[in-house]
This record gives sequence, structure tokens and C-alpha cells, in this order.
Amino acid sequence: MALPIFASDALSSVAYAPQELLMILLVGGTAFLAFSPWVAAAVIVLLVVVVLSYRQLVKAYPSGGGDYEVARTNLGEVPGVVVAAALLVDYVLTVAVSVASGVDNIISAIPSLDPVRVELAVGFVVLVVIVNLRGVREASRAFAIPTYVFIGSVGVMIVVGLVRWALGDPPVASSAGFAVQADDLTQVAVILLVLRAFSSGCSALTGVEAVSNGIQAFRRPKIRNAQTTLTLMGTIAILLFAGLTTIALVSGVHYAENPCHLVGFDCESLVQPSLMAQVAAATFGAGSIPFFIVQAATACVLLLAANTAFNGFPLLGSVLARDGYAPKALNTRGDRLVYSNGMIILGIVAIAVLVVYQANLTNLIQLYIIGVFVSFSLGQIGMIRHWLRGLGQIRGFSKAARAEEAVRAETFALRKGLVINSIGATLTVLVLVIVTITKFTHGAWLVFLAIPIIATLMIGVNRYYRDVEHEIAMDDRTRFGSTGDLALILVNRLQKPVAKAIDYALAAKHDKTLAIHVSVTKSDTDALQREWKEHGMPVPLAIIDSPYRYYAQPIAEFITQYREKHGASVVTVYLPQYIVGHWWETLLHNRRARRIAQQLMLIHGVTITLVPWLLDSSELIYGRRSRPLPGQERAGQPFEPATGPVSITERSSLEGP
Amino acid sequence: MALPIFASDALSSVAYAPQELLMILLVGGTAFLAFSPWVAAAVIVLLVVVVLSYRQLVKAYPSGGGDYEVARTNLGEVPGVVVAAALLVDYVLTVAVSVASGVDNIISAIPSLDPVRVELAVGFVVLVVIVNLRGVREASRAFAIPTYVFIGSVGVMIVVGLVRWALGDPPVASSAGFAVQADDLTQVAVILLVLRAFSSGCSALTGVEAVSNGIQAFRRPKIRNAQTTLTLMGTIAILLFAGLTTIALVSGVHYAENPCHLVGFDCESLVQPSLMAQVAAATFGAGSIPFFIVQAATACVLLLAANTAFNGFPLLGSVLARDGYAPKALNTRGDRLVYSNGMIILGIVAIAVLVVYQANLTNLIQLYIIGVFVSFSLGQIGMIRHWLRGLGQIRGFSKAARAEEAVRAETFALRKGLVINSIGATLTVLVLVIVTITKFTHGAWLVFLAIPIIATLMIGVNRYYRDVEHEIAMDDRTRFGSTGDLALILVNRLQKPVAKAIDYALAAKHDKTLAIHVSVTKSDTDALQREWKEHGMPVPLAIIDSPYRYYAQPIAEFITQYREKHGASVVTVYLPQYIVGHWWETLLHNRRARRIAQQLMLIHGVTITLVPWLLDSSELIYGRRSRPLPGQERAGQPFEPATGPVSITERSSLEGP
Repeated sequence: MALPIFASDALSSVAYAPQELLMILLVGGTAFLAFSPWVAAAVIVLLVVVVLSYRQLVKAYPSGGGDYEVARTNLGEVPGVVVAAALLVDYVLTVAVSVASGVDNIISAIPSLDPVRVELAVGFVVLVVIVNLRGVREASRAFAIPTYVFIGSVGVMIVVGLVRWALGDPPVASSAGFAVQADDLTQVAVILLVLRAFSSGCSALTGVEAVSNGIQAFRRPKIRNAQTTLTLMGTIAILLFAGLTTIALVSGVHYAENPCHLVGFDCESLVQPSLMAQVAAATFGAGSIPFFIVQAATACVLLLAANTAFNGFPLLGSVLARDGYAPKALNTRGDRLVYSNGMIILGIVAIAVLVVYQANLTNLIQLYIIGVFVSFSLGQIGMIRHWLRGLGQIRGFSKAARAEEAVRAETFALRKGLVINSIGATLTVLVLVIVTITKFTHGAWLVFLAIPIIATLMIGVNRYYRDVEHEIAMDDRTRFGSTGDLALILVNRLQKPVAKAIDYALAAKHDKTLAIHVSVTKSDTDALQREWKEHGMPVPLAIIDSPYRYYAQPIAEFITQYREKHGASVVTVYLPQYIVGHWWETLLHNRRARRIAQQLMLIHGVTITLVPWLLDSSELIYGRRSRPLPGQERAGQPFEPATGPVSITERSSLEGP
Repeated sequence: MALPIFASDALSSVAYAPQELLMILLVGGTAFLAFSPWVAAAVIVLLVVVVLSYRQLVKAYPSGGGDYEVARTNLGEVPGVVVAAALLVDYVLTVAVSVASGVDNIISAIPSLDPVRVELAVGFVVLVVIVNLRGVREASRAFAIPTYVFIGSVGVMIVVGLVRWALGDPPVASSAGFAVQADDLTQVAVILLVLRAFSSGCSALTGVEAVSNGIQAFRRPKIRNAQTTLTLMGTIAILLFAGLTTIALVSGVHYAENPCHLVGFDCESLVQPSLMAQVAAATFGAGSIPFFIVQAATACVLLLAANTAFNGFPLLGSVLARDGYAPKALNTRGDRLVYSNGMIILGIVAIAVLVVYQANLTNLIQLYIIGVFVSFSLGQIGMIRHWLRGLGQIRGFSKAARAEEAVRAETFALRKGLVINSIGATLTVLVLVIVTITKFTHGAWLVFLAIPIIATLMIGVNRYYRDVEHEIAMDDRTRFGSTGDLALILVNRLQKPVAKAIDYALAAKHDKTLAIHVSVTKSDTDALQREWKEHGMPVPLAIIDSPYRYYAQPIAEFITQYREKHGASVVTVYLPQYIVGHWWETLLHNRRARRIAQQLMLIHGVTITLVPWLLDSSELIYGRRSRPLPGQERAGQPFEPATGPVSITERSSLEGP
């Protein structure tokens, strides 16, 4: 069951990786397609190395922190934060790229949807956000189906295509007949182009890291299951990637970066079908039922890959929040126990990226995989440190201890890990350099700008929390026993909420209780004083003149003057506050009380007591509401039937002073 | 001095009224321009009648409520609210039309600005909003200059043009040579076209009502000064309107609704200059200094007209809020004593209208003046009622009393008013019908949709306030003397803010004081209990288990259980609250405490006491800040040096119970 959940991200990459690889080579002309088997082979080798490396990482760090934890533990704070920033950027791009590619495949099947490409993409992101906010775990069983259908249908397509080829009746893609306009290239440009094709093909590797971040979700034995899933996923990904590239070459797919460079293709009025769609059409026939199955499964798997990011991003966000590198709100579980704030942020940023890039897959791919390879590289380097440290410990053992069987086996395991991760680190750093060189000017500079900015912000957030923590840390110098407290009840007009506030203030038995009225209009003040006497209010009413219509300031001065004279140290200001039932009612009530409260709270020794007054409408609404809206905090469910036992564990301590 | 402030709205109308009048006629072809003197004459007659009618209204209702007050007093609530809604809609359109026309005249002088038309328009609205939020009254002297320059320069232009015409050397407009494509029209269509031209020309009348809404701003004798201003303004408006229309006809301006209908005009690459620009260029020469003076003065006066709406809208909003027909926030004076909320709303809505209509003057004019004529008509009808009531009172007098000189003079005045306003009512209702017929399908249906919706909302708001008022009205059944109060201090971790809350709770001497901790993570709870003992906290700590990570609900159940056992009637929950200095700090602090407060306030008998904890940054910021940002409430100035004396008028009452 773990395969479909974690593999959709990695497997879905094969829906666009071969296309982007061949597309870049085609910039040099059809002759360049001869390079493609070699480039594809290099991608496959890299994929094997990365999968093996991650098998080691999963074993060493089964807690699910992934590359972030590895880098932070072994390399220090800054590399850890850089990995986290890179991963956050890449989660956003996973959503954008997957959704853009999914929409691409939908449009390849139904070309009339082309004018609403961006709207479709945004709509899918919104859909995924809503599904995730409502808690997606229950539905994960249903998620398995598209993944298996995708593997199966694409597998069948590859086999059918290869068999037809072997039988001398190879499938022919619709674009096979088109020539390609290409410029003459210098030798350097040729090398750069091949490297660029490799970089684009490397997008097949994205998603491999997902398993290392989600080990906790596996069944026991977690490490073994995670490793098995990794191997299985890697094998399937390699088979699909190799098969799809072969079939595309056999059937002569010509997929151009700019469709108008295809000689013979009506680029003005037609949409260039995706490589997947061209292969499926060539193998099964355009418009056939298998064609639509392949396209639908591809689109579904790509949307599931976007969904994976909606698991990973909020989880990483909560880990960062827990470690003090991100706002604490990211560690707040919302309704249905999901980290709703992280999901909403990811959704908004992904939509912004999709709109800015007009859901153009080729442009988005340029930004992609840099974050992944930054994270890969630092993770692998961290793993080298990890193994070296282990070996260093063993080296400290006595000779006799080192000769023991268990220790020798351990040494062997450490050395094996070191070798594998060293190869992994070398290759991923090399690829990171290649990717950087070939993509930087094509838009990737934006990612190189974003990662350090985000990392710096994270460190800033961490320092802020540290400072606040230090400031509010408990010490034993705090003395209790403030005396001489004064209660002030703010009165505008004599109405029931004021009476309630007075009642509560009297119940608290403050040393002195006083109603105060800020007089702005003479006639209102006179009316208040008259009513105050008529109703025989049990506390005296002080009038403060405020000819300039200030409210908070005269009260502040009143408090100061009172203190000078009577020496009260604690002042409690009672403010009646309306509780309303509809959101629009808040528009109709003055926020004056709240503004006054905010100002008075700045004065030393003042506390604000909000005395709620539930308007009729609020009782109606809150009494009825059964459950909160999606994304609303769980804590926002006032009258939900109790779901868990509430026990008071220290009953004896209830007998207070 | 009153003239420039109130007249800019009315006078600026002549910048677009002749253009729109001639433009509509030109739809029928150049031959139709022969109708223009008659149509213009009809507009002038109407303008005279309306000015005379408003002289009567100003005399009868000098309080400044304008048509809204007249309709509400004489016709009842619904007509009053309809007038208010119509005026609010028209204030928005005044801003949109004036700014669009102003931008049009700027672009006529500097055609290269055409691509940023909408941005310019939005920018001007933002500018006017900011200027008004900062308090515009001091600058009103500066406002006089553009108005006088406008009157002067346009006056000179008309005189020069007429003199040149008389000398046989009439100015020739740049568009005089262009023929116009026109369809053959049926007789009905001809009549409709002429009526449409009249409707568009009636936009010259807008702004006349401004004086009646601003009488309070006049110097004494207010009524006489207001009447004089009205007459003067009307005379100037008529002269400018008539003069400009004449010169436009003499110089042969052909201004087309669709510039591509002008045969010989390169509508693809050139911008059609406004009528004002064409006349100025023909009279003084394109690019001459007087040409730029006329254009600059026109643009300035149009922006001042927009500014007038920023005086009128918030004022009407505050009157409506005072009467309970609009949210009370509209009656809150912001910084510098202006009604900032109303200004911000007007700005946002006007920008939305400008963006939706792409700052297209011709389309905006279609929506305009309907609101004005609804308001004119209901105001005039209200005035008829007013005079009739006065005459009815006199009819009730004895015969002897009626014969008295004063009463006879009074009767004469009443009859005079009745006659003038009857003519006014008849004509304005007639024009309202014409305007409705000719503009409804051209976009004005939107206004007919908006006015009743706004009016209904206003009545709804009024009913809501009435219900709330009834609900919270003081009665003598309120009994004081709740007893058995309990203080709960919410503790998450033991930090200084918690210690402060405990200190304050103890100072208030509640019957029972108790710290409570909602236990979500066992280890955190254990640590808290350990620290609690170590620091020797003076109140007992109760632990509430919450295995499902709820916060508010377990506390609510705790309160319920406690009450059942101990019978506390008032529960005060102490919540430490951070006060931060930078807006971004709020993003970094959990809002859990606030959410819990909101939930607990729904429980009967619970009050929330916020114990502020000023973080270092807040002292830094609030200590330094000298004055609030524009638009911020005046009450939001905590440490501004005192500007007025604060006196405690009932010192004797300070000796509380």
C-alpha cells in the first residue's frame, strides 16, 4: 500500500522527463536524437545511485526528517536550513510542474480545453488543497488505483510498442513526418545542449526523497519496508523511463520547445500533443479507448504527485516550526488533524507560480530539480560525515574490540555506506553543477535567489524566538503580592452589557470599583448621569472630559492621576464586548472598545477584562453549528459533542488558597 | 472662497458635457449637429430651473442634509433611503467620471500616456484618497487657484474664438475635415438619438446639489451666501457650457463615439483628442502655452471634482450612520478628524469601477446622472410637500391672522416656492424618465439594480440596530450581586507572562484562584509540574487531560464540572497576551490564546482577562512613534503629547464603595 502513496511523485516524473529530454536535444535538430540513448542511460545510472544512497539514508535516519535532519545533524544549522529552504521551494515546484504537466496531458487528449489552461491548473490546485484540508488519509486506498493503472497501462503500451517494432510494424507518431528547424551549433554549444538535455531528464529523479521523509507512515518493520519500496519504485521508474524513451524514439516523436519550429505543423491553430499522448496515439490509435486510459491515468498520477507535496510541505513546515525555524502556526493542527496553514500557504504560492508562468511546463521545468539536487547533495555529504563519525568511533575501540565479529560487521556496513554515499555525493554534486550551469540563465536564477532568502528568514525567525524565549524565561526574582487594585468599567451608554460588566467587577471584589465615561458630547453625558441615578447603579460614575474626541488617552491620564493620588498598582479595565453570530454583524459594530483595549494594554499595570455579551443571533448560530468549515482550527468547535474523556487529574489541588 | 470648493464639481461638468452631447448627435451624422443648439438650450433651461429650485431648498433646509433630509422629512423613510443610495452611487460615479475625463484631457495633451490610461486613473484616485485622509481642509485655499484658472482660461478661449469668428477667421478644429460614417435612421431613432444627446448633456447639471449638502461650511449668513454661490455657479456654468458648445460647433469639432467612424482619422495608432483639447488647439494652436494651460486647468478641475465627492460621500455616510442606516464605523472620525472609513470605501469602489470600465469616459457617462436625477426628483417632490404643509398651516389660521402683512408675505413666499419646485419636480421627473429610457440598455440598468439593493441594505442595517438596541436596553430587573467567583489562569509553560497573570489574579482577590494546564504532551506536563514546585508558585495547578489536542473544550467542561461541585457563578479566565512592536511579529506568535478566548466567551458567566506582556520590541516601537499612519484612528495614538486638558469632573465620586 505504501507504493502508490509515495511512488506517485517519483513515477509521475516519467510522464514529463523523457519529453523534456528529447525536446532539448531536438533544439539541435533531428540528428541530435542519436544522443538520446546515452543521455537516458546517464539519467538511469544516476537514478540507481540515488536510490541506493537513499536506502542508506533511510537506514541511518528512520525518524523521517530526511535530508533536512541529516544535514542539520551532521553539517550544522546553516546547511540544514538551506536544505529545508530548497525542499520547500521544490515542493512548490512539484505542485506547479505536476499540475502543469497533468493539464498538458488533459489538453493533449481534449485540445479544445487549451484556452483555459491556466484556469484548469489553478482549479486543480484548489481542488487538491480542499481535498487535503478535509483530511485525505481515508482516501489513500482510492489513490492506489490510478498509480497501478498508470504503471499497468504505460507498461502495456511499452510492451505493445516494442512487440510491434520487433514484428517490423513499429508505431508511427503523428509528428514523425515533421522536419525540425535547427541552427548550426558550435562544439561548445553541442556539449551544453547535451548537458541541458541531461539536466532536464534528471527531473525523472524527483520524488525519490519522498520516502525518506515519510518513513513514519510505513508499517513495521519500517526501515525494511521503506527500503523495499524505494527499490521497487526505482526499478519501475527506470523501466518506465527507459521504455518510454525507446518507444518515443522508435515511433519518431518530434516534440519541439517551440511548436512553430516543426516544419509542417500548423502551430497557429493546433496544440502540440505531449510525448505521452503521441506515443499512446501511435501505439493504440488516436481516440481509441486505451489512448484515453493512458492519458487519464497519466493526468491522475500527476495530480497525485501534486498531492504528495501537500503531505510533505506541511510536515516539513511543522518540523521547522517545532525546531523554531518557522512560524509556530505551521505546527498547529487544524480540523481533521492536518497542518492546514502549511497547506494553504503551499496552495497559494503554487497558484501564484502557475499564474506567473502561465502553466507552461517547459518554463517551470527550468526552475525545478535545483532544489532537489541541493537537498540531495547536502544530504549525501551529511551522510558521508555520518559514516566517517561512526568509523572514527570504531577506530577509538581497543584492538581486541575491533577484532570482534559484530564490530567487524558494523565496520563493513559503515564502509559500505560510506562508499555508496560518497559515490552518491560525487554524482549529485556534479549534476547540481551541470544543472546550475545549464539552467541558470533559463530562469533558475530565481531559485538561487529564493533559497538563500528563505534560509535567512528561517534563521531570523529562529533568533527571534530565541530572544523572546530568553526574555520571558521564568526566574525566581518575580515577587508576588501586588496590592491596591482598581477596577474601571468603561461606560458609553447605560445598557445591559454595562450592567453585566458592573456585576462581574463587583463579584471579583476589587479594592475599588469605578465606572468611567469619556465625555465627548455634553448631552449624552447628561443623559447618562441622569439614567445612572434613576437606575441606582451600585458603583460611582466618573466623567472624563475629552473635548478632542480622544478615548484611550484621557483614560490613560485618568489612570496616571489616580495612581499618583491613591497608589493602585494593578488596574483592571472592564470592557463589554459583543459576541455576534454572523460575520457581517462585525461590520456593524464599532471596534472602538477593541481599539481602546489595545491602547490601554500598553500602559504598565493595566489588564483588560472582556465581558462578553452574546447577541441573540450568536446563540442561534453557535447553538446550531455542527462542525467548522474546512481549514478552520479544531479548537474552533465550541459545542461539538465531546469526543474524548476529560479528566481532572489533580482534584486535590482544586482546593485553592 | 466657497465658490472654488463647491463649484469645481458643477463647473468641471462642462469639460465633458458638451463633448458627450455632440458625440451622441454625431452618431447620426454631421447633419445632426444642427440639432445641437436646441439640445444645448434645453440643458440650459433645465440648469436654470434646477439652480432656482435648489435656492429654495437651501432656504428651507439649511442644516445641510440636502435631498436626503428633504425626502426623509417630507416623504418618509423609504424615499429618504432611496435618495441616499442614489447619492452614494453618484458620488462613486462622480469620482470615476471626473478622473476618467481628467485622464482623457491629460492624454489629449500628451498622447504617449495612452497605454497607461487605467493605471493613471487609479493612481489619481489613490492620490486623492491619501490627500483626503491626511486632512484636506488646510489646502482648500490652494484649491481655489485651478478653479479660477479654469474659469479664466476657458472664458478667454471662448471670447478669443468668438472674436475670431466675428472677424471672419474662425478657429478650425483638427477633426473638422473628417467625414463621419453614419447609418440611416428611422424617425423614432432620430427622436431617441436627440433625447440621448440631451441626456448626455444633462451631465452638465451634476454637482449643483453639492452646495445644498455643504451649507454648514459657509460663512454667515449661511443661507444668503449659499444662495449667492448657487446663482454665481449656475451663471458661470451656463456661460461656459453655452460658449464651449458654440465654439465647438464653429470650429467644426467632430468627436465620434468610435474614432474609427471618422473617415480620414487613423484610429489604429492615434488617440482622439477630447473636445476641450481640440477647441483649445484650434483657438490657440496645438502645443502652444495657452493650450497646455487650458488642458492642465481642465484636468485639475476634474480632479478637484473627484475630490468634492471625497467630502460628500463620507459626510453622507456619517449622517446615515448617525441615523442608523449605515455601519457605525462610518461615523468614526479618524486621524485629523476626517471620516476615514468612508473615504477608503469610496476610493476602493471608485477604483473598481474605473478598472472594470477601463477608465472609458463614454461608457461611464451612461451610468452617471441617473442617481443625481433620482435625488433631484425626490428632493423636489419633497419640497412640494414641504410648501403644501406650510400653506396648510396658514389655511388653518383665522381670517384676521391671514390678513396680517407678515402672514401674507409668508404665504407669498410659500406659493413662490411651491411654483418653483413644482416646475423643478416636473422637469426633473421628465428628464429622469428620458434619461432612463435612453440610457437603460446602454449600461444604466446596473445603477437601477444597485440603488434598490443599497437602499434595502440600509433599511436592513437600521432594523438590525433597532433590534440590538432593544435587546440591550437597560431595565430595572437587573440584579447585582453575583457571588462565588473563580479565577482561572491558563498556563502552557511557566514563563514570566504567566507569573504576571498570577500576580494580577491574586491582586484582584477572587474567591478562588487556580492555574490550569491543558495537557496535550505528557512530557511537557511533567516538566511544568516540576517547575511549578521548584519555583514555588503561590496558586495550585490543575491539569486537564486532552488526548485529542483540543484546548477550549476541555476547559469548558472543567468549568462546568467545577460549577456543579462548587457553584461558582462568575469565572474569570486570565490569558497572557503578547504585545509586539512590528506587524510581522504577529505572524510568529500563535493565536491559540485568542482562539481559546473567543471560544470561552461563548460560555455563560465567563469573562476573559487579557494580561498584556510587552515584548522588548514593542516598547522600542511604541515609545518612539510620534504619530499614527494616515487613516489610522486618532484613538490609536497612545503616547502622543496631550493636546487638551483632561479634567476629572466628579472627583467626589472617586471615593468608590
